[in-house]
Amino acid sequence: MTHDDDIQVSVLGLGEMGGALAAALVAAGHRVTVWNRSPGRADRLVAQGARAAATAGDAVRAGGPVIVCLLDHASVREVLDPLAAELAGRTLVNVTTTTPAQARETAAWAAGAGAAYLDGGIMAVPRMIGRPGASVLYSGSADVFHEHRRLFDLWGTSTYFGEDAGMASLYDLALLAGMYVMFAGFAHGAAMVAPAGVTAGEFAAMAAPWLTAMTGAFAGFAEVIDGGDYTVPGQQSLEFSDLTYLVAASADQGVSTEVVAMVQRLVRRQVDAGHGKEGFARIIESIRRPG
Amino acid sequence: MTHDDDIQVSVLGLGEMGGALAAALVAAGHRVTVWNRSPGRADRLVAQGARAAATAGDAVRAGGPVIVCLLDHASVREVLDPLAAELAGRTLVNVTTTTPAQARETAAWAAGAGAAYLDGGIMAVPRMIGRPGASVLYSGSADVFHEHRRLFDLWGTSTYFGEDAGMASLYDLALLAGMYVMFAGFAHGAAMVAPAGVTAGEFAAMAAPWLTAMTGAFAGFAEVIDGGDYTVPGQQSLEFSDLTYLVAASADQGVSTEVVAMVQRLVRRQVDAGHGKEGFARIIESIRRPG
Repeated sequence: MTHDDDIQVSVLGLGEMGGALAAALVAAGHRVTVWNRSPGRADRLVAQGARAAATAGDAVRAGGPVIVCLLDHASVREVLDPLAAELAGRTLVNVTTTTPAQARETAAWAAGAGAAYLDGGIMAVPRMIGRPGASVLYSGSADVFHEHRRLFDLWGTSTYFGEDAGMASLYDLALLAGMYVMFAGFAHGAAMVAPAGVTAGEFAAMAAPWLTAMTGAFAGFAEVIDGGDYTVPGQQSLEFSDLTYLVAASADQGVSTEVVAMVQRLVRRQVDAGHGKEGFARIIESIRRPG
Repeated sequence: MTHDDDIQVSVLGLGEMGGALAAALVAAGHRVTVWNRSPGRADRLVAQGARAAATAGDAVRAGGPVIVCLLDHASVREVLDPLAAELAGRTLVNVTTTTPAQARETAAWAAGAGAAYLDGGIMAVPRMIGRPGASVLYSGSADVFHEHRRLFDLWGTSTYFGEDAGMASLYDLALLAGMYVMFAGFAHGAAMVAPAGVTAGEFAAMAAPWLTAMTGAFAGFAEVIDGGDYTVPGQQSLEFSDLTYLVAASADQGVSTEVVAMVQRLVRRQVDAGHGKEGFARIIESIRRPG
């Protein structure tokens, strides 16, 4: 399935995610050169048609865009720093999970080396790559995004957030924060009902459609937040959302109250500041202004 | 639209929610007697066809099942205690939000008064009553649930959780906990991206489908939790879910870290106890066993 427009791509880092990204490129017929610090990770990809490079430098010298999917920011710099001279005039796409500040730092480093730089944040687990539901966020060089979008679309839905290289990471981390916090809320609910003999499976069957329906409230909260007036009518008030019952019932069930107490603190800081009659969306002010 | 099977029902408490419940009963053609501590709340319902009672006792004496939707558990007992003798042989349906322990206390009190008792937990805001998406959870007397289910189905999807009067409240609060915690996660994400010029509306448009997709993970977590073996392969490990980036990026954005730090504490208690290689679902053990 090789086509005229297949290109040479290199992938540095073959953890679960890097391996999945490389496999999707190989499956689409591209010429893929792979490298991993510890050997053995390339074997399956080589069987599928990839070429293994002995060093990161060899992989870069194979040509084409260089996809970087390493453990963390420190690994990225450790692998790339010695290759600065080789990267002049080349294209770097770094999908390693980093903070926005680290993404901007790598972008500045790449600019210094004369490389075009695109940062990516992957909103998927490795087995979702190339399948429905996978989404990858990009920011940095618009040229790189548009030139290689055909590659990126092999991994999932591609969204570009502008020239600031930190934006993809920022969106990525903000969405991941929402996810991890929701998971903690699910675990809290499951822990609450467990002493009554309710299985986590039974609770999940109720919680998944319930929380899906409740994501419908985000747009309304956002309208109030963006409007800047938390007194608009029709909102559930902070006073009404004190979570006293939730904290008491959690304690009654013998489980930790810390998950719901976190939300209660956000509510109470606003109530204590005199905003009890205002809408629940105002909890964002407790987060915007650390207590 | 009066039918042969329309019955007399009384509703005690005409806050936003009690008023919505009564209005749905009136609209379906039932004979509805309403009472509220402070006057004036009944006017609109009377215009629609309800009868206003001057006292809670008058409303009870009007006959039929008594729906109770008051501010809290204390209000319920304050209103019902003087009416114990009148409630002998009658049916009480208490949809006031209370803890499971309070629901069981009211059930025991009703049993002592010789009244049949059903407790309810409403999974909806008032404007959703009688519309798609509204759900009411019940527990307590199966006879009451089945006899009056036709009334309950006017409010939303009716689900019965067994004879333990506390179960509806427990499920209600566990699902509400999931909701409030998810809302805090959304607010955190929106606060993180705000300094970069992203509106809450733009973030909501990404977060709602993302978190909806991620509710798909609950069933997998539940399978691991119910199986009791957090070492089964294919899970994202606790070590990998340390949330260091999320906490660092939140601090970099100048927002409070407390929302994501809560999740990080749940993760780290398990990692510190030697379970770092096990699956993320294990955070429920941090909640089950208060630290």
